[in-house]
Amino acid sequence: MKKIAILGSTGSIGTQTLEVVRENGDIEVLGLAAGSNIKMLEEQIREFHPQIVAVWSEEKAEELRVNVADTDTQIVAGMDGLLEVATMNDTEILVTAVVGMIGIRPTIEAIKAGKDIALANKETLVTAGHIIMPLAKKMGVSILPVDSEHSAIFQSLQGNRHGAVHKILLTASGGPFRGKKSEELMEIKVEDALKHPNWSMGRKITIDSSTMVNKGLEVIEAKWLFDVDVDRVQVVVQPQSIIHSMVEYVDGAIIAELGTPDMKLPIQYALYYPERRFLPGDRVDFWTLGKLEFEKPDTDTFYGLELAYEAGRKGGSLPTVFNAANELAVSKFLNREIKYLEITEIIEDCMKAHKNIENPTLEQILETEAATYERINSRR
Amino acid sequence: MKKIAILGSTGSIGTQTLEVVRENGDIEVLGLAAGSNIKMLEEQIREFHPQIVAVWSEEKAEELRVNVADTDTQIVAGMDGLLEVATMNDTEILVTAVVGMIGIRPTIEAIKAGKDIALANKETLVTAGHIIMPLAKKMGVSILPVDSEHSAIFQSLQGNRHGAVHKILLTASGGPFRGKKSEELMEIKVEDALKHPNWSMGRKITIDSSTMVNKGLEVIEAKWLFDVDVDRVQVVVQPQSIIHSMVEYVDGAIIAELGTPDMKLPIQYALYYPERRFLPGDRVDFWTLGKLEFEKPDTDTFYGLELAYEAGRKGGSLPTVFNAANELAVSKFLNREIKYLEITEIIEDCMKAHKNIENPTLEQILETEAATYERINSRR
Repeated sequence: MKKIAILGSTGSIGTQTLEVVRENGDIEVLGLAAGSNIKMLEEQIREFHPQIVAVWSEEKAEELRVNVADTDTQIVAGMDGLLEVATMNDTEILVTAVVGMIGIRPTIEAIKAGKDIALANKETLVTAGHIIMPLAKKMGVSILPVDSEHSAIFQSLQGNRHGAVHKILLTASGGPFRGKKSEELMEIKVEDALKHPNWSMGRKITIDSSTMVNKGLEVIEAKWLFDVDVDRVQVVVQPQSIIHSMVEYVDGAIIAELGTPDMKLPIQYALYYPERRFLPGDRVDFWTLGKLEFEKPDTDTFYGLELAYEAGRKGGSLPTVFNAANELAVSKFLNREIKYLEITEIIEDCMKAHKNIENPTLEQILETEAATYERINSRR
Repeated sequence: MKKIAILGSTGSIGTQTLEVVRENGDIEVLGLAAGSNIKMLEEQIREFHPQIVAVWSEEKAEELRVNVADTDTQIVAGMDGLLEVATMNDTEILVTAVVGMIGIRPTIEAIKAGKDIALANKETLVTAGHIIMPLAKKMGVSILPVDSEHSAIFQSLQGNRHGAVHKILLTASGGPFRGKKSEELMEIKVEDALKHPNWSMGRKITIDSSTMVNKGLEVIEAKWLFDVDVDRVQVVVQPQSIIHSMVEYVDGAIIAELGTPDMKLPIQYALYYPERRFLPGDRVDFWTLGKLEFEKPDTDTFYGLELAYEAGRKGGSLPTVFNAANELAVSKFLNREIKYLEITEIIEDCMKAHKNIENPTLEQILETEAATYERINSRR
């Protein structure tokens, strides 16, 4: 039995990972970690019998400890708890599906402990790719991408050498506002931005998708995962979201991965890599599909994507600023504190004000995050 | 230096193979064979300095022998000559790009001599797949597909196990008469049928493409190359010919190979497999491509494709009948002896009349071919 632990088990990727585990029946879940949803954690404990479960909130951890006192599961809390789950003795793969910079330290410690990482936490590579990737190489562990686009690229790279890659074609749905111009986006409401045309996702990433900041984060992630300059990552809008991404080789051949939008596919591929298992679900029917369309992204309107290229190109602590500024700005938009277009304005403002640090340490990354938050919170 | 020989060096695939050799500069051409175009053969001899060149026609061979008396190249003739080139001592790869059943014996002898086969001759696998594939397996040699679709499938299979394949999606341009009904095809002229929308090819294969018989032959070829039942090979019309074919896996993931229509890509991929080399030429630009369309093939009108499925399903000597009947019928159409729709009618008639032989020997295959020709020639 393959043994895994999951950070972020109550979120979208976490619960779908557990669905994959349930359907296959031959993976043992030794550890789970989540923020505060102890009701769902209790259900997961009773179904999957993990040895250790970490809850971010100390208070909620105590509550859960009482609720599952009849089980053998040990409840731990806070960052120490998260690290404990990340580095458990017998796990082979750590699924990191927590949202935010909180995922970085557990990922680093898990790599040091020799675990392969099924990576669904964007912030880890965006802000600390220069630390993570050399460490993973040194420890001989695999970083297996779990989101749809990077998994598609990873699948399209199989059987080919790195030197044969000419560029990466990262596909994008274009989000719910594709085709609109800035003037039309001025009065966008939270409800409008939360409607993603193809994928069912969390609130934050849905907004990120609408601004194309999410695609920008993916460009920076691709740079680290696949060891290419951001300028060799081309974003292609493919509104039907059937082509999940592609790789163009030096001979002009393009290898692509296509499928229906289903996060369980990249999750399962990462868990069983390089093996493929049957996965129930809809299939693409090319006889009735009709057509696939392709467009250049409108970076005049969605210039968050351009800012991501700039951050990815300059590197250092600038991608942390890009990410942190976006994170807080989106949260403020969701709280109706700022307007939709201000999200990108805030990112740009923070990036302009930042004095870039080359090869920042983890501490400097976290300081950069804090400073970015502070700048935004003290606006006006 | 990689060492190769080419059967069919003056044809479309042969000359493009030599272009690839010329552009890379690190492949040695030890042998060439062609039918009767000794003018072009002489040019090839003077440029590539092969040790042996086979000419099908004894007379032309003698003429060429005189013309290149100042070179070190030995000129041989007929089937013996072809076999000599196919089995030369030092070659690693034999490119079989001759048209017709003439390619089968040299291919078998080359496999017995331990050569990898870069296969561009359709008839070999369509008629003798049951002999070729087990022999290749026994000898441990690779059959590297050279045509665009099978190379795309081969590329899309890299890094995956055979057991993970669910089906093969063989793309088709649909040919120049896509969308037309039988009534509209009754008075089709040779000139109309020779206009292929995307690929530049020989006359016979262009007609085969218009009737979709070519796609049918590819379905049967795919069965042998990739060890799947024909009913797990689905033909998808993709009029832009950008997607060259796809593989659907058990998890629902579809891996595809895309590119501009350029035969040099599959040729080069076969010659250097598994390495990819830079190849000059146009690239697909997804920002300006617009769209890709998909359709179900119209097998009511183009029922030659259905006949191919039937031949592939039943196997034995029936695919030989399918292929031979088509070969002669197309030749008669090109000679304006029969009407366009009669091509498929003749194939159907020959298949109906045939008493199938299971696991035919090479001799029985050739007898079946002859009997099919005879039946057609004695029509009316």
